[in-house]
Order: sequence, then C-alpha cells, then structure tokens
Amino acid sequence: MASLRFTTAGESHGPALVSVLEGMPAGVPVLAADIDTQLARRQQGYGRGRRMQIETDRIEFLSGVRAGETLGSPVAMLIRNTDWRNWHEIMDPAPREGDAEGPRKRHVTRVRPGHADLTGLLKYDRQDARDILERASARETTARVAAGALCRVLLREVGVAIGSHLVHLGGIDARRPYDMPADLNAAADASPLRTLDAEAEVQMIARIDAAKKEGNTLGGICEVVVTGLPVGLGSHVSWDRRLDGRLGQAMLSIPAVKGVEIGLGFETARRTGAEVHDEIEAAPGRTRAGHVRRASNRAGGTEGGMTTGEDLVIRVAMKPISTLMRPLGTVDVATGQAAQAVAERSDVTAVPAMGVIAEAMAAFVLADALLEKVGGDSLAEVQRNLEAYLARLDERVER
Amino acid sequence: MASLRFTTAGESHGPALVSVLEGMPAGVPVLAADIDTQLARRQQGYGRGRRMQIETDRIEFLSGVRAGETLGSPVAMLIRNTDWRNWHEIMDPAPREGDAEGPRKRHVTRVRPGHADLTGLLKYDRQDARDILERASARETTARVAAGALCRVLLREVGVAIGSHLVHLGGIDARRPYDMPADLNAAADASPLRTLDAEAEVQMIARIDAAKKEGNTLGGICEVVVTGLPVGLGSHVSWDRRLDGRLGQAMLSIPAVKGVEIGLGFETARRTGAEVHDEIEAAPGRTRAGHVRRASNRAGGTEGGMTTGEDLVIRVAMKPISTLMRPLGTVDVATGQAAQAVAERSDVTAVPAMGVIAEAMAAFVLADALLEKVGGDSLAEVQRNLEAYLARLDERVER
Amino acid sequence: MASLRFTTAGESHGPALVSVLEGMPAGVPVLAADIDTQLARRQQGYGRGRRMQIETDRIEFLSGVRAGETLGSPVAMLIRNTDWRNWHEIMDPAPREGDAEGPRKRHVTRVRPGHADLTGLLKYDRQDARDILERASARETTARVAAGALCRVLLREVGVAIGSHLVHLGGIDARRPYDMPADLNAAADASPLRTLDAEAEVQMIARIDAAKKEGNTLGGICEVVVTGLPVGLGSHVSWDRRLDGRLGQAMLSIPAVKGVEIGLGFETARRTGAEVHDEIEAAPGRTRAGHVRRASNRAGGTEGGMTTGEDLVIRVAMKPISTLMRPLGTVDVATGQAAQAVAERSDVTAVPAMGVIAEAMAAFVLADALLEKVGGDSLAEVQRNLEAYLARLDERVER
Amino acid sequence: MASLRFTTAGESHGPALVSVLEGMPAGVPVLAADIDTQLARRQQGYGRGRRMQIETDRIEFLSGVRAGETLGSPVAMLIRNTDWRNWHEIMDPAPREGDAEGPRKRHVTRVRPGHADLTGLLKYDRQDARDILERASARETTARVAAGALCRVLLREVGVAIGSHLVHLGGIDARRPYDMPADLNAAADASPLRTLDAEAEVQMIARIDAAKKEGNTLGGICEVVVTGLPVGLGSHVSWDRRLDGRLGQAMLSIPAVKGVEIGLGFETARRTGAEVHDEIEAAPGRTRAGHVRRASNRAGGTEGGMTTGEDLVIRVAMKPISTLMRPLGTVDVATGQAAQAVAERSDVTAVPAMGVIAEAMAAFVLADALLEKVGGDSLAEVQRNLEAYLARLDERVER
Repeated sequence: MASLRFTTAGESHGPALVSVLEGMPAGVPVLAADIDTQLARRQQGYGRGRRMQIETDRIEFLSGVRAGETLGSPVAMLIRNTDWRNWHEIMDPAPREGDAEGPRKRHVTRVRPGHADLTGLLKYDRQDARDILERASARETTARVAAGALCRVLLREVGVAIGSHLVHLGGIDARRPYDMPADLNAAADASPLRTLDAEAEVQMIARIDAAKKEGNTLGGICEVVVTGLPVGLGSHVSWDRRLDGRLGQAMLSIPAVKGVEIGLGFETARRTGAEVHDEIEAAPGRTRAGHVRRASNRAGGTEGGMTTGEDLVIRVAMKPISTLMRPLGTVDVATGQAAQAVAERSDVTAVPAMGVIAEAMAAFVLADALLEKVGGDSLAEVQRNLEAYLARLDERVER
Repeated sequence: MASLRFTTAGESHGPALVSVLEGMPAGVPVLAADIDTQLARRQQGYGRGRRMQIETDRIEFLSGVRAGETLGSPVAMLIRNTDWRNWHEIMDPAPREGDAEGPRKRHVTRVRPGHADLTGLLKYDRQDARDILERASARETTARVAAGALCRVLLREVGVAIGSHLVHLGGIDARRPYDMPADLNAAADASPLRTLDAEAEVQMIARIDAAKKEGNTLGGICEVVVTGLPVGLGSHVSWDRRLDGRLGQAMLSIPAVKGVEIGLGFETARRTGAEVHDEIEAAPGRTRAGHVRRASNRAGGTEGGMTTGEDLVIRVAMKPISTLMRPLGTVDVATGQAAQAVAERSDVTAVPAMGVIAEAMAAFVLADALLEKVGGDSLAEVQRNLEAYLARLDERVER
Repeated sequence: MASLRFTTAGESHGPALVSVLEGMPAGVPVLAADIDTQLARRQQGYGRGRRMQIETDRIEFLSGVRAGETLGSPVAMLIRNTDWRNWHEIMDPAPREGDAEGPRKRHVTRVRPGHADLTGLLKYDRQDARDILERASARETTARVAAGALCRVLLREVGVAIGSHLVHLGGIDARRPYDMPADLNAAADASPLRTLDAEAEVQMIARIDAAKKEGNTLGGICEVVVTGLPVGLGSHVSWDRRLDGRLGQAMLSIPAVKGVEIGLGFETARRTGAEVHDEIEAAPGRTRAGHVRRASNRAGGTEGGMTTGEDLVIRVAMKPISTLMRPLGTVDVATGQAAQAVAERSDVTAVPAMGVIAEAMAAFVLADALLEKVGGDSLAEVQRNLEAYLARLDERVER
Repeated sequence: MASLRFTTAGESHGPALVSVLEGMPAGVPVLAADIDTQLARRQQGYGRGRRMQIETDRIEFLSGVRAGETLGSPVAMLIRNTDWRNWHEIMDPAPREGDAEGPRKRHVTRVRPGHADLTGLLKYDRQDARDILERASARETTARVAAGALCRVLLREVGVAIGSHLVHLGGIDARRPYDMPADLNAAADASPLRTLDAEAEVQMIARIDAAKKEGNTLGGICEVVVTGLPVGLGSHVSWDRRLDGRLGQAMLSIPAVKGVEIGLGFETARRTGAEVHDEIEAAPGRTRAGHVRRASNRAGGTEGGMTTGEDLVIRVAMKPISTLMRPLGTVDVATGQAAQAVAERSDVTAVPAMGVIAEAMAAFVLADALLEKVGGDSLAEVQRNLEAYLARLDERVER
C-alpha cells in the first residue's frame, strides 16, 4: 500500500475541480488559508491573461479535516470554477435538447499543435477536441497545487521547506544569487516573474511584451529548492524506489514540461568526476545526516536515489504555451483539410506558475517518501519516529 | 493491476542476478539469445575496465518461456556472477566462523562521494558500506537490460524499434546525422563509444585516455530513439498516466543519471512557441496516427502525455563514475576521521552502456503503455487489437 | 498502471461525500439517474432507521462526463450530506472559538465494541472517537455505490449484469429459487428485505421487529450473481492477479463483513472432488467461453483465478450493526473507567443494503479486470476488442 | 510505494521456482534454515502423493542476505525442482527439433474440471494445457511459503507469532481445544493432518484412505491464528487499506480456496449484535492495545479494518483437489469431442499444507501492514518505532 496517493478530477470549464489526498497522518494542523495561499501563488506571473483575474481560487474542505486538524481520512478539496455559469450549456454533463442536431457551441476540430488535442481525439475516439482539452488544460494543475499544499504543511512540521524561482525565460538567463535567500519564496514571489535577478527580470518582461505583440509564446526554466530534508529518503534498492526517478516522473508529468535535471544535471556530462562529486566532511554540529556534510552540493541533494541531507535542487524546463494567438498550421479533423489551429484564450507564458506547480509535485513525492521512511499515523508519531532516526544518526556518526 | 511489472534482485558480487518480468502476454517468440544480445550490448564501450572481460553475461530462463514462446506467466531470468567463486567468503549469505571477531574482508568504511555508500549506510543503519554498494552497483542494470530485452521483443512484434546513440562525452559533442540510420543500433554499436560521429569519436577516445591517466572519470549524454509507436500511448487524464512522466522516472532511476529531456527538451525554454510546436499536416499514406503527421518532431514524440505517432526522442545525461582511482576526500565512518575514499576497481566512463540501459527502461515503459492501451493476453490478441485501433484511426481521419 | 482506480472521501456528517473513478473509457453513455438509481437501492431495507428518510442521495457530476457520455477523464461525483446544516458546528473543518475550552458537542469517548472507535483512536492518536467514527461509518459506502454504478454501466454495455439477493438474516435462511429470475434485482428489490423467499421474509420481518424491541441488531448473508461475463477475466499467473482474491478483498473491505465465499464456498470442504467439480461439455450454441459450458456451476464462476464464462456467484456475510440501543460494556477512554458504550442512532440491520454495496464492489473489480483483458480507451474499442476475443474463442473451440 | 512486495515465478516442472521479496528492512537475522523449515512444513500431510517425497525443498539465497542478516535489498530465493532432469525435454525453454512435427510429450488437451486448464487455454490462446497447468500448479505456493517465511522472521522479531491448524476435513469437524496450545504449530505439526483433535484425526485418516480407494479427493478448512499483533494495523479510512480485505485477498488467492472468514465469520450472520460484539474492559497489565482488552474475541482480531490487539483468527476453506484418479467428464479441446479428463499424478487432499500456505500469506500481509504503520529501514528502527507507539498507547490509555 502506498503511503500517500493523490487524485485530481475536473475539467477546465466544468463545475469544479476536486483534489483528493489519501494517506495523510492525523493531527496535522491545517487551515483552508494554507491551501489558498498556494493557489494564489500559482496565479501569479507577468504575462498571464484574463483568466487569472476571473478566478481567485479557493478550496472548500469536503472531508478529512476537522477543527483545523487532519483526521487521517482522505482530504477532499473542492475548487469551484467561477466561470462555470458561462459554460454550463457547453459543458453540461447531461445531454441537452439540440445535441442531436450537431455539436455544442465552441466545439473544436482545428486541433492545436503542441497540445493534447489531436493525440487525445485519436486515443479516446472523440469528435470534439473540447472533450480532451478541457482536461488537458493547465487548470488541472490547480488541484495538484492544492494536494501539494497539504503535503507542504506536513513537511513544514518536520522542518522541511520548499521554494522555487525562475532561472530562465525565453532565451534570458537569471543569475542565481551567491547565497540563496533564507525565505526563497518570499523573495521570489516579490517578483512578477518569480526571479531573483532584477536585471534579468527587466529583459524578460520586455521579451514577454514583444512575444505578446507578435502573438507568440515563451518557455523557461524554474529551479525548486528544498531545505531541511533528512538523509535517506528514497532508496537505491529498486528502480522504482529511487527518489530521483520519482521526482523525475512528478516533474515531467506537469503539462508542457520537457526536461528535468537534479543538481548540476546535464552539466555533469561535461565535467570530470573530480569536478562533479561532492567531498564528504565532518560537520561541526548536527546536520540532517548525522555529523557529516558535503563540501559542495553539485549532486543537488541526492546520491544513490536517496536524499543526502543537503538541499534538494531540481531544474524543470517548460516549453512555450501551445495556444498561439498567431496560430499554427494544422488539419481540421472534421474535414481532413488543412486549417489554422483554433486560438483559445491564452497567456504568453506560464513559467512563473510552473515553479509553484513543481514545488507542489515535489512536496507530494517528498511527503510520500518521508512517510515510507518513518511511518506514522499521526503527526506526533511522524515527528517522534523521525527524531529517533536523527538521534540514531548522531549516535552512530558522532565521535 | 498494472499491465507489466518488473523486479530485479542481486548484489554485484553475490551468486547471481535475477530479473523477473510479470505480465507478458503469451505466445511471444523469444530465445535466450534475444536477451543475451542485449546483455552483450550493455558490456560494450571504450573505457570499460576489467570486469567487462570477466563477465560475459548470459541468462537462463527459469520460468515463463517454453519451446521458444512466452507462456503468460512471470519470466524469471537468472544471470550468474562468474566472479562469485572469488567472493563467496566475503558475500556469503550465511554467517561464518570469525564473523564475530570483526568485519569480513574488503569491508568499506571510507565512503565514496557521489555513490550511495554514505546515504545507504545511514538509512539502513549498517556498518559496512559493502552492504550498500553491492546493490547500488551498476551491475544491477544488467537485470534491467534483461527485462527490457523481453519487452523489446514484444514491441518488435508490433513494429516498434528502439535504438540509442551517444551524443556527448566529457565535454565533446557528437553531431547528429541529418538522417538517422535505418538501423540505429547497427550503426551505433559499430562504434566503441556508440556514437554516429566518427570525428568526435576520435576526440572522445583521447579524452578517455587522458582521464584514465589522471585517475579521473567522465560523464555524457545518450539519445534514445523509438520508431513505430502508435499514437495514444500514455494519457493526459491523470498525472501518473502521462507517458513523459513515466519515461522520466524510468530514466532518472538509472544509477548516475542526473537529467532527462524529451524532444528539444531544455532548448524549448529558449525558443518561442512558433519555433517549438510541430505543425500538423495530412499524410499521403497511412501513419501511426491515422492519416496525419507532423511537419517536424521537435516535441520528440509526445504531446499531452501521449505518443504522437512520431519518433520518440529522449536524451539522458549521466554523471561521471563515482569511483575515482585518484580518490576524493571523505570521512571514515568507522572512526569519524577525514580519509581518502576507497578506490574500488572502476571504469573511466559508462556512458555508452547507459544508452543500452536507457533503451531497456524505455522498452519497459512502452510495452506497459502498449498493453494498457490494447490489452491482450497473447501476442495475437495484442496485434489484433492494435491493428483494429489503427484501422479505426484510418477510418476516422481519412477522407 | 492500474486500469481502474477509485477513491472515496467524506465523513458521515461532513458537508459531502466524493467518489472519484479514474480510468473509465470515453464514450460510455451515463446519466446522473443511472447512479441515483443505485444510491436509492442502497437506501432500501426494512429495519433501517431515520437517516435513510433524511437523506435521499443524489450525485452531481463534477467532472468526466459531458453530454451524457464519459470523456475518459476522472469522474468525480459529489453527494451532499443534507444533514450537514445540523452538524456544521460539530464537524466544521475550521477551528472555532471555544475549541480550546474543551471538546466540541457530541464528542465520543465511550467507544463502541465492534466498531472502529477504539482501534482508530489508538492508531491515529485522537481524543474524540467522532474523528474516527465519522469516516468508519456505513455512509462511506454510498460513495462506493456511486463508483460501482458507473462501472455497472460499462459492464451493461458489454452484456454483463450484476444483481444480488438476501439469503440469510439473523438465523433465518431464505430458499434460493430453482431458477433465478431473469432480472434478479427487479425481483429482489420488490421485497423490503431483498429476498426472493416470501415465506422467509415474513419470519425475518418478525425477527427484526423483535430485535428492535430488545435494542438488538442482526446480521445476515447476501448473494451476488453476475451474468454475461466472458471467460478469462483475472489470471492464474500471479497471486495478486487472481480474480477470487480481488473479489475477496473487495467484499471483506465492506464495513461489518466477516466472511466471503465463491460458489459452494465453505461447503466444498465437506464434499468430495466428484461432488464439487463441474464437468465440461460442448454447448449447442455460442457461450461466453467459446462453444463449451459446464454441466453445473458449483465453482461459482471462477477456476484458476479466472472467470469460467458461467455465472459468478459470491456470498457475503455481514455481522450485526455495532451500535446497539441496549449498549454493551466498554471503557470510557477519557477516564479509563468502565462505561456503557455510546448509543448513536442506528438501524437494526443493514444486510439488504449490503447486497447493493457488494454488487458495487463486484462491479468495480470486474470492470477493472475487463479493461485489463481487452484494453480500450473508448467504449467502442472495449466492445470491439471483446468481440474479437469472443470470436477467436468460437473459432478455436468450435468444430 | 508499497512497503513490501513479493513476486513468485516458476513452473511446476521447470528448472526452478524463484521468490523475490522486496522491501524488507535491513538487519533482520535470517538463515536459509528459517525458510527451509517452513518449506518442510508445507510438504507435510497425510494423503500426499509421491511428489512430496521426490522434492525436499531448500532455498538458496541469491541476494539480499549477507552474513545471516538482510541488507534491505530484494531477497531472491531459488528453489530448484529436483524433478527437472526428467522434464527437461518437455519443458525446455528453447525450441527443439521435432517441435514442428507436433506437440511435445505429455501435452494435455483433455482439460480437467475444477482446474485452470480450460480457462487458461482460452484466455492465453494456447493449444497445450500444460502451458497453463504448470503455473497453475500448487507447486507455485512453495515460493509463497518462502516469501512468507522471511516475513515471519521479521514479525517474530517484534513478538508476533503465526500458526495454524486444520479444523475440518471432508465432512469431519475437529474440535478446537478450550485453550489454544502455547506453541500452536508445534502441536499441530505433530499431527499428520495438522489437527489438534486426535479423535477426529483417526476418522479423517479413514476418510482419506476411503477417498483414495475410490479415486476421489477431499477438501477442508484450516484456521490461522496470529498472536502478538499491536492494535492499529490496517485502516478504516479507505477500502483498500482495510486489513480484512487485504487478508481476504491473500487467502482467496491461494489455489483451490473458495471461502474465508474472520473471527466468527459466517456465524455472525446467525447471531444478534449482543452475541457478536466483544465488550471492552480495562486490562490489569500492558496489552498490545494500551491498557484495554476485549472480554471475548468473536471479532477474530479486527474491527474497522484494523487489528484490535487481540489474536487474529482466520478460517480458510479449500475445495478438493481437481485432479481425480477417477476422472470427470470433459471436452478434448483438440477435437471438440467429449472425453475423460487427463489424470495427472495427484494427492487426495492438500488441506494440511494449505494451512501453512495461509500462514505465509498472512505473514506477508501483516509484515506489510506493520511496515506501513511504523516505517523503518532496519530492524532496530522498526522495533524502536513500534516500541514508541506502544509506549504512547500506555501513556494515553493508562490511568
């Protein structure tokens, strides 16, 4: 039985999204505001279009939380689509009069390159790409952020913090500061692009404005940084227990993500071993790995498929949004004729938001791996077992 | 119930490795030679050390295959470690006289940076890092290649071919040919580095020789290319059904892999949407996606978490081997004192072999996704259902 | 990846229940009424108390269904607890003023024997057994019935029908008719106890009335019968693929169920092989197993962990409800003193409803096994692959 | 990620069986003899035929164990089929000369009622039922017993003991003693039928002798009893976490098992609530559930899908062996004509062995549930976390 599982449901213009997180210990203190804060962070970002204004996402706990604490039972969160009133006719679960006479309004057959439209239509044997794109929409990630927010609360209670920042946008690199800010997200969220490099930010904004003018879109790269992780989450013993792989799946499952790397990542291919591996040394005080630490963290916090006790550093690359206002060539699947792809309302870039989604996915994988490691059905038990593990590390490594 | 599952077992110097693949349809024609051929491919590569000569890996089918056909039951493959005779005393499963007096020969406490040694010791609370490194060894991937070889046979029977080539080694790029060879592996395997660029190969060999002299190691990048995949493997509907994520986990679960990208990957972050998305057009004949195709394949064969019917292209970055003959600084966990890491026998680079392993992991993920899509308990049923699906695509897209 | 997954969430007196079914093919015709009909069947039964009148359960599709057809995406169904208005204060997810002064109203510490109260309190380290009993409540099964109702629709589209009837209640056996009614549920649902034996029904009602008078409760046995299943769902190859086991888990996961048997079940232990095994014979026409059939069906539709093509027959035993109006001795966990268990509102028996729940669980397991066997992402593809399989059986067995 | 997983592979007359247990903590002391002892117990039983003499099963650890301790890595156990030398030609994985001229020796087309022969042939589209029956054989359970034996060692180290005895055979009940023996298996294994009732044993032996004479077979019922389990394994929160269901799957996955019940089981259907539920009382000393206990154990050790801290009691019903020396009527699938089923060598009854297999399956489910509850990657960590949990129970329940 998996420690933690999560399921999301919901179409972009349906009545609501649902996020269910199963396997949370009891006794974790959580308020709706803890979740809503993360949802709001997902809605940030220069270059977002109209929808981000329409929807101010808020969750309602339908289950699993009482008096501000988790109960150990599945936590279901409902996130209403406030736009639903305008889409009821189009997205109605029930058949409607007139359905027989032809497709509903806003049906889509001029499938968009880069999106799930065509692959989904063929796989699921549908006629209207709306049946696909409503689910393949980035809106689904709202429900992921909600589940991740809950995982984040659990991690917070054991001293783990997750942040991210944007390190590249549409050809422009942001410099990573020499020392990361103590509160990474406070710093990153202060920027409309969630970058720590104010100079690059100016150029990026200009880049976005230019892309918007030409009806184009932009991709970029975010870096997720996790602090406070104990050594030994994940495992080397079997391929599907390795934490790197599980993080990789989580990141590459985010819509439009095309690459992921941990620590130096692709750069390790260019260096020698002596320039890549992090020497091990005794630490003056207690670390998250007993009394040892690494002289550097080029590994980005994992070795042998396990956390090392150093910061976890993951970089995630996102392609430009697939819906261009200046549409690409395609085929109309209703006629088989060449056509211009449909141009649905769209942002220029979603990279700043993607960082928040990547944080959420990391939170899920890490909370799951933590519970695997220490077990526990209540927060107190999780903390007690983790503390005993850390104390044992002290004992065995300390001299 | 998952369609396909695989489990590997075995320590590097234990008696044997075992690879069990569960969920294969019956009636798939397979010989031990089909597996051994892949194991031999894994043992290639300029810059490999002595062990590759010692061990010529061969499998014995223990189950699941009869008269050259799979039975539908779990296929267990045994791969003996021929070196076992020299390690029996050290790795004996049973306690031995003298165990109480101290650790067995070749015990390891000067843990190697970059390897699982230290993280594993702390997580599993062991005293001898051999208890970790024997499993965290690259030798485990032999069992993966065996399972993947079987998956590859299934895929071959439905027209899917998997190859790879080395595109970067230790700072040196190989050029990708304008047209990929019809038989990618035949071309790549002809090179001691599995690269298609003969000029780069010369430089890479010099780079390896130099690294060897200085007791250093090298990383690199391989590209996996899969042809013949039908449209619609994987799904956009849930995060953990997305094929990109599942491929990402498979690749990042390979020891020493630190990055993975699909299609243009990280490069998509630098481009605009118009330069990234692949326009869709009618195809003159039947494709693996009905009668449509992409004008380009910058996506690398997936959109919306599903195969597009174009070639799947994955690039995988591997860090340099962690065991350097010129060892790095570390801590001796038996004393807590600074020390030089143990120097186990090691190759300079394992990147050429990594491509073969990445092929195997891709084969597993794709065979699993294929069986999910079309079901089937016999090869004939798999083929029949797939053919009916492709025929339906014809019918619906064709005009 | 599993073919089908379902998750339920929701406390008995929380705002709502949620049922999410993930993995349904697209194109399955479904209306809310298809689900509501099953929810209403769950609410039947002589001997039910007040709550069954309060709540007339209805689902709202939140996702996965459009224009009366599934989309292939997760189907989330919301079932509001109409009683929520009376419980808002007690079950509020948010902390409330006054929480610090002591437990909320209706807190429970006199834990009920036979219920999850005590085990849950200890496992999850809670103080108020309401934190446990709200989830351990039979109300959770409403969400199971909703998910099962959807699976039932899929099965109906391939000719599989699931029914049940009550065969025992509190010491009174119902006779099984010589020939089962063509529409089992139409016949069973006509009885307030869902039994096909009108004479036994009279006695059972008297038994319930008597138990009610003495503040006692009753258990019983239901039989689930599934017709139209093709041969070969499930598998003999691995322990966790066997259909019997998966059905067994599904049934024993229903609250208060203490036993399950397939076909003759425990009776097979009393007979000889010659009296147990079903002889095989040629069938005059096409069956769900080619052109063969069994002369009898003592196996109850499974052999070797697979369906045989005969009717599946499962019997499920339920213990009496744990909440007695004449309460049992217990310990007050707040004081450690002996006490009388709390007497929450309760029915005398829930056995008639349990049959409907068992049908739902069977529907889930069978739909999952069907999709495993034939694959398919749309109803048309499921039907096409199944038909091709059945045609192949004809061909191979027919002479 | 599941805590524990196990996979078995191997045909009855193939070269060997393999059992792989994945997820065991490190540091569990284990010898091959711990496993072999359980394999020998599986081979007991009056009424077993020749094969039990041929094969004295012994495991070889191929991985995961060193110096008498687990390493945390997958434990693979090899069990050779000593009969292989006689079956090499028939079961050869490789094609042989002459294969094209017709089926191999000992091919089977007169499929046996009650066995997987026919269902498997149709599902997997095979011509020779040997391709099915070799895997559907009871011999597969040897590998289950091996995996279970390892789980049993882990459980032993935390004070949990698993035993079983036969309570019914072919129409004859054994009386359960008033007090169970302190060492249940020592007592049961002293009987050739593994029953605690010496009088019933005499009748059962006569029954077996009579059945043998008439070429018939017999079924029966075993009871598994587990002592020392802490309260709170399993969970009420989700259907697939409930321990009853997981035990039910494990038991009904055993070949030829047709029924399972926990505690009073089917008998609870006949009684009132007052006669079924176990009153709760303060315990004089420390129990496995804090300082409370049950006045009776009619529940058989589970409430709300969780262990109660009382003994777990499961009864498992097995049908008679399907291969009768006096064969049943069937169809020859090669000709479509009526025929007598093939009569493979067979025992009269396998019920005594089934108890040992049921113990093994229980051991797996319980070890998995234990690791879920307390986590832990080494035995010391498992023990430490469990002890802390029990201490917390003391603290909260004790007055």
